[in-house]
Amino acid sequence: MKRSFIREILESIDEETISFAGGLPNEALFPLKDIEKSAMNVLQNSKVLQYSLSNGLKSLREKIAQYYNDEGFETSADNILITTGSQQAMFIIAKYFEQKSITIEEPSYLGAMNIFRMNKLDMKPVALEADGIDIKAFQKSLEETKLAYLIPDFQNPYSSTYSQVKRNTVAYLIKENDAYLIEDSPYSELFFTSKKRTISSMIPNNSFHLGSFSKTFAPSLRIGWVRANEELIHELMKIKESIDLHSCGLSQAILNDYLSDSQLFKQHLQTIRNDYKDKMEYFSSCLKAILPEFKFKQPKGGMFIYGYIENVDTKKLVFEALKHKVVFVPGSEFYLDKSSCNEIRFNFTHSTKEEVKEGLIRLKRLIKGEL
Amino acid sequence: MKRSFIREILESIDEETISFAGGLPNEALFPLKDIEKSAMNVLQNSKVLQYSLSNGLKSLREKIAQYYNDEGFETSADNILITTGSQQAMFIIAKYFEQKSITIEEPSYLGAMNIFRMNKLDMKPVALEADGIDIKAFQKSLEETKLAYLIPDFQNPYSSTYSQVKRNTVAYLIKENDAYLIEDSPYSELFFTSKKRTISSMIPNNSFHLGSFSKTFAPSLRIGWVRANEELIHELMKIKESIDLHSCGLSQAILNDYLSDSQLFKQHLQTIRNDYKDKMEYFSSCLKAILPEFKFKQPKGGMFIYGYIENVDTKKLVFEALKHKVVFVPGSEFYLDKSSCNEIRFNFTHSTKEEVKEGLIRLKRLIKGEL
Repeated sequence: MKRSFIREILESIDEETISFAGGLPNEALFPLKDIEKSAMNVLQNSKVLQYSLSNGLKSLREKIAQYYNDEGFETSADNILITTGSQQAMFIIAKYFEQKSITIEEPSYLGAMNIFRMNKLDMKPVALEADGIDIKAFQKSLEETKLAYLIPDFQNPYSSTYSQVKRNTVAYLIKENDAYLIEDSPYSELFFTSKKRTISSMIPNNSFHLGSFSKTFAPSLRIGWVRANEELIHELMKIKESIDLHSCGLSQAILNDYLSDSQLFKQHLQTIRNDYKDKMEYFSSCLKAILPEFKFKQPKGGMFIYGYIENVDTKKLVFEALKHKVVFVPGSEFYLDKSSCNEIRFNFTHSTKEEVKEGLIRLKRLIKGEL
Repeated sequence: MKRSFIREILESIDEETISFAGGLPNEALFPLKDIEKSAMNVLQNSKVLQYSLSNGLKSLREKIAQYYNDEGFETSADNILITTGSQQAMFIIAKYFEQKSITIEEPSYLGAMNIFRMNKLDMKPVALEADGIDIKAFQKSLEETKLAYLIPDFQNPYSSTYSQVKRNTVAYLIKENDAYLIEDSPYSELFFTSKKRTISSMIPNNSFHLGSFSKTFAPSLRIGWVRANEELIHELMKIKESIDLHSCGLSQAILNDYLSDSQLFKQHLQTIRNDYKDKMEYFSSCLKAILPEFKFKQPKGGMFIYGYIENVDTKKLVFEALKHKVVFVPGSEFYLDKSSCNEIRFNFTHSTKEEVKEGLIRLKRLIKGEL
């Protein structure tokens, strides 16, 4: 099995390496004091340390359901399954659809592709465009697979966002084909200007909507969720139960306590958005100034800048870059079968401004043959 | 898929029901104050909230390795994979051996049987005796399957413990057949008088030894582990990574901080053992006084008392008992295919003395037809 390049890199790099590789949130923004306060609150009762239900803490599921209702997407706590990160939600769904075929965007999230491979799903790639998937090819593929995995908001790695027209069309085609959509939305809240309507809200019974608190709260707590109709949630819950009985109860209780002050989370989200927008603009300006041969479009949210450098094999480049203590993810990793590729994914949220500048200067010197 | 009876019961029972069903630790013994203190310690640094390595926190793996070394079982941090409860370790191993055959004890742990079913392992049951598995039948089965799942210490549900002779024989047979042993040890530390040598220590390259902090620290933190040789750990880690990237980082850090005072954990373990021994003796004496038709042997550790009542279908009984707000697990649940059975598993660790008495009185009246 092919491992995640990003996870392998995380293991091998040292503290000194400037990493544009992982999708790491900015640590400085973690609500450390608020989490400490919530931890104190919930650790007054030993029940928080006992085994709990496989589908997750009810009051947390209710709060998540409320977010959907606030956006006009009718949802109850019974439509929600809490998972150990949205990664686990994906694994569970893949296990549920084991050995079936699935339409995916290309490029796509490496972690999802690994999960699909592990659960023997036959992946059918369809090209991703600036405003979403190639609809003609998607329609043809979906007729065969009846199942699709899409990341409509600030796609990983491509950073594109689906237009409203493509959202409507995808929803129509899913329904028309009696198919299912797995809508992965870890970055939806990380918009710089506005949020688009989820595709799932148009097809509530034919969709799995995946969310995560890893990018908006704290990744180490490993709290994600999936929203689906009750029958599907019940099927997924049986798989979830077999995998780990339930997700960390302390994490769930801390998050639930934190979310009970709804203003706190709203303000926190806005802080992250402002910071990431600033970081994206800084990274973009550095790219233009230092590495103008890298061609890209500025993203409208999320954590990544995606582009290419003509005539450069970026997989070769990254191994050279690692020697000089800077790392990114080469585009080849996001394709099913591509050994050579000139694309690069940069994460812009984790590094400091000094690191961004220094890392890009090193890359520039490498490409110029000066290192 | 057959769901866990115990998990279904946990969902449907109310606060008033006296439950002898789940394997719930005694909440009153959770080291709540120490966990609060450790939480405060580790929440001084935002790194604890960031993504971390898939195999688990290194200093925690080192501490677990040290426990093995203290018992003369040579182990390094690289032999350990931290998992989301030992339940997840089992799922990962089952996924690794997908579609193979496996020898299991009968009766056995329902959660493991569900995992094996889900990963299409063909289970070959061998009868469990008071001193461990039926060796002759085990030998014959192992020649075919080359893989075995055993719970040698205070078995769930049977409460039996393997004799030293059977441990040696199992190790010999595993090696002789070039087979693998999955040794599940969630209860090993819950002994009333003494601890026996793990079978895995005699066959370090042919074994997976599973451990858990759910029974000795706090279940909600979902921290378990598997010990195996480095090559196997690396293979399991790839699966682990796909399932949830890594287990809760905050839980791992809290536990690691707590364990840094080795005396604290030693004393805590002794407190649990004393309490559980006391509870087991009380439960036994109540059974003898109130429900003498229930035949059983006193366990030497663990969390369960297992026995039978002649001419009583305990699956029918439990549904009647639920109406009168008392619950246990009927023996049929622990067999691959048994619709009627006169066996019962009682958990003795969770209920108060008053609840034990009251619950057993209700059962007695039910059996006598008074309710």
